[in-house]
Amino acid sequence: MTRLALDAMGSDLGPAATVAGAAAVSLRDDAPHLTLVGDAALIQAELARNAHAADRIRVVHAPAVVPMDASPREALDARPDASVLVAARLVANGEADVLVSAGNTGAVTLACARTFARLPGVARAALGAVVPTELRRGERRDPFSLLLDAGLTLDPTADDLVAFALMGAAYAERISKNPRPSVALLSNGAEPGKGPPAVVEAHARLAAHPTLHFIGNVEGMDIPRGTADVVVTGGFVGNIVLKMLEGVSDTVMRTARAAGERRWRYAAGLWLLSPAIRRVRQVTDWQQYGGVPILGFDRLCIKAHGRSTARAISNALKVATITARTDLVGGMRAALEARG
Amino acid sequence: MTRLALDAMGSDLGPAATVAGAAAVSLRDDAPHLTLVGDAALIQAELARNAHAADRIRVVHAPAVVPMDASPREALDARPDASVLVAARLVANGEADVLVSAGNTGAVTLACARTFARLPGVARAALGAVVPTELRRGERRDPFSLLLDAGLTLDPTADDLVAFALMGAAYAERISKNPRPSVALLSNGAEPGKGPPAVVEAHARLAAHPTLHFIGNVEGMDIPRGTADVVVTGGFVGNIVLKMLEGVSDTVMRTARAAGERRWRYAAGLWLLSPAIRRVRQVTDWQQYGGVPILGFDRLCIKAHGRSTARAISNALKVATITARTDLVGGMRAALEARG
Repeated sequence: MTRLALDAMGSDLGPAATVAGAAAVSLRDDAPHLTLVGDAALIQAELARNAHAADRIRVVHAPAVVPMDASPREALDARPDASVLVAARLVANGEADVLVSAGNTGAVTLACARTFARLPGVARAALGAVVPTELRRGERRDPFSLLLDAGLTLDPTADDLVAFALMGAAYAERISKNPRPSVALLSNGAEPGKGPPAVVEAHARLAAHPTLHFIGNVEGMDIPRGTADVVVTGGFVGNIVLKMLEGVSDTVMRTARAAGERRWRYAAGLWLLSPAIRRVRQVTDWQQYGGVPILGFDRLCIKAHGRSTARAISNALKVATITARTDLVGGMRAALEARG
Repeated sequence: MTRLALDAMGSDLGPAATVAGAAAVSLRDDAPHLTLVGDAALIQAELARNAHAADRIRVVHAPAVVPMDASPREALDARPDASVLVAARLVANGEADVLVSAGNTGAVTLACARTFARLPGVARAALGAVVPTELRRGERRDPFSLLLDAGLTLDPTADDLVAFALMGAAYAERISKNPRPSVALLSNGAEPGKGPPAVVEAHARLAAHPTLHFIGNVEGMDIPRGTADVVVTGGFVGNIVLKMLEGVSDTVMRTARAAGERRWRYAAGLWLLSPAIRRVRQVTDWQQYGGVPILGFDRLCIKAHGRSTARAISNALKVATITARTDLVGGMRAALEARG
């Protein structure tokens, strides 16, 4: 049975959201076993409020919490019994298969770095992110691609980019049921010589990989289009790209609302389009995906959004279950070794 | 009188577009003097087809053309009499004030680098680009901000970023009639310590500049919002950001069209919204802006889009006229010297 360790204190909404999400998952037919880590009294109180399968849930007490706005290093140094560290240790010890947390991204990543081992040949970790796309992919016809790194490794070397590509492909294969995901480097031109030296060198090495479905460089316009299933870039660019996509969506929504308030004609037009707009919003709703992977370690961590509701936590736990059941770590290890 | 040198061979559409654009500008009340550089016979033939003010146009023959897809270095080495080089020399010699070209960006930039001198303390050049924004700015209420570098200097140092910020502010001040444009560095967080070392160092130095209106770091979501009048970043990030914005707009248009073809309800909604959609498309239409500046030299160059029509060329010539009449070079020099 798959076993997940959930940092129950890690969301802005606290145990009310994390425990409710876990309780809902525990009632599913193929539910994993869930260890909820945090303030035991608070967790028990929330469990009492939510229908759940008691035989699939255990509670492990951890007295300390990392504040969302803390400096990760200082916060973890001062709190060896913080819920995220205790949960990570359960995974490292083999008592659970995957760590799930909606805590401060820096603190969660640092907890992984201090508790797990790195995969062979991986120097730095990457955070995956989900980008809504026009094209669909895989058996589930998913309207999104995976972009990594989303902000952990600002200035990656060619080695880092190669590792991100291989780990990202292994993840996409499992999550989108896509047997041969296409992988691309993000650059300022399609030609192999385009981009800074690390991108050019990574291009040459990925092109020589025996099994990876590497399609070369993609450019900025390929991100919303969805030309590649996995888009590889550094954390500085990845962070800017992702926040810009959020910003464009916010700007379009605000502009549309203002137009509707100004003229009846526009209000009527927006009303007619509302089912389509709702569908687009569903596709671009991060709560739908629930969580994204922190890749680079010999243990898995699914990072849920800091503002996760119960629904987002449920979805993050489902993603974590899939990664455990499909042996993502084994898949990443094999791809990294085939690099030669 | 302002004098512009136009590379008449530089557009994908050739002299038919460039000469028609120049002819239209020559008829305006406050028209600049225009030197059209290229194949004299072709240019004369096009002039004969378009109403123009003959006393404001002269033709300078240049027999060679740089192909749009050529390697800039090889193309210019092999063609010392290419139209873009001949036109740049007219500007360097003081026979014209500004170079305007719709040619291959790399070749135009290299022609500037080989013909003009760099401004004191500027090591590398930047290409400005215009980004449509939700907020408006300046006396003209312009719905766009300036982003630089758009692709010339992939991996800038802190020195480069500081120079880009000062030159960009001088440009925005003149083009948007914005007496004190706000300038920001693009980074992965608002805090001064966020970003790779070059961004962090540039932040400290820009914050200490005596006259610049530096507002700190902006993030990806601030680009479509338009939080800053001038957004400073490296050419790798700038290229990806700009192409992604184009891509998002294409994806939205394609998705809307497909929805309209599928359901009458959506077709009706889109029809009702069409005046607003048309207005947004006008704002995001590059032909409207005509040209963007190549900054870093003691002479000016306005680069028009490779697919420029006559209208785009006219607008590029108008932008070039403004930069000459408002002494952009003097303004940039003063800002660079105040850096200390």
